[in-house]
Amino acid sequence: MKREQALAIVKEHLTEQRYLHTIGVMNTAVELAEKHGENVGKAELAAIFHDYAKFRPKEEMKRIIIEQQMDPQLLDFHSELWHAPVGAYLVKQEAGIQDMDVLDAIKFHTSGRPGMSMLEKIVYLADYIEPGRTFPGVEEVRILTAESFDEGFIKSVKNTMNFLLSNNRPVFPLTFQMYNSIVMKMED
Amino acid sequence: MKREQALAIVKEHLTEQRYLHTIGVMNTAVELAEKHGENVGKAELAAIFHDYAKFRPKEEMKRIIIEQQMDPQLLDFHSELWHAPVGAYLVKQEAGIQDMDVLDAIKFHTSGRPGMSMLEKIVYLADYIEPGRTFPGVEEVRILTAESFDEGFIKSVKNTMNFLLSNNRPVFPLTFQMYNSIVMKMED
Repeated sequence: MKREQALAIVKEHLTEQRYLHTIGVMNTAVELAEKHGENVGKAELAAIFHDYAKFRPKEEMKRIIIEQQMDPQLLDFHSELWHAPVGAYLVKQEAGIQDMDVLDAIKFHTSGRPGMSMLEKIVYLADYIEPGRTFPGVEEVRILTAESFDEGFIKSVKNTMNFLLSNNRPVFPLTFQMYNSIVMKMED
Repeated sequence: MKREQALAIVKEHLTEQRYLHTIGVMNTAVELAEKHGENVGKAELAAIFHDYAKFRPKEEMKRIIIEQQMDPQLLDFHSELWHAPVGAYLVKQEAGIQDMDVLDAIKFHTSGRPGMSMLEKIVYLADYIEPGRTFPGVEEVRILTAESFDEGFIKSVKNTMNFLLSNNRPVFPLTFQMYNSIVMKMED
């Protein structure tokens, strides 16, 4: 699917602000893919569609999680997590995207998971550092990412964990497992 | 088992410093049990024996974890976690303690677990705030505990999580599940 066609599809599903965020993630993901020898087309497509389901009604997302037998633990956690796996499903159903690498990058762009592919990490990190993001610590992650992709990625994961803890929010098991897999590799 | 008899047994297995820590945990656990209507005898016994296996050789602990079919994930994590479940096992085998409430309080005094009993929480928290402890933040937890046991307990768990994260250390799954169960209750 061409960039323009993909953008035209997602635009219908997003607010103006979220569409601008999507453009930012797309540009950042493409840059990171070019720099690190990852498939640019896949990175672009996954970035364009990463928030496809962001504005679906909660009840619809819940129904899809149940009907498609997704991880039932999702329903015990914040609905903010739902749009990623539900989005991967809907992008396949409605936009006809079949590429599993792309679908997984959409599916895990919020929770992360242990053993993420480079493509998945690129979309996760691009979502965190795209130019429209302004939360505390984001500039440090941008600088780290420019020096070392791994350092930037690790910092974004740690920042996310610290944000959840400091706000007394639960951590989704996949996110926790991703954190553990990262720091266990650092110990080696 | 009488206090003196129990103390005489553990003294043989601990350094002078760790024995003084144990006395501190015992006194604190007894105070907390009295204040909150928990079984004082069980709290005392669990506190006295909580570090029973602290100085066992790593190889012996590893062998016991494997032979007794304890959670195999323990071996992927810091050996600091091992003395608690191994201690519960050895206290039963060598000191003849059969009380499952006491043994579980020993077993989970380092990792914690979701759905801890009041006795388990008392030993966990006493281990954290006993008078010999001097690490940053401990005085705040003592003050909170004096006002509200739950607040003190929650703070000690959050401090532990933050300590692990800030030191790039992995979090044992039971500890992570305990954290999630606590903050999920706070959201209700």
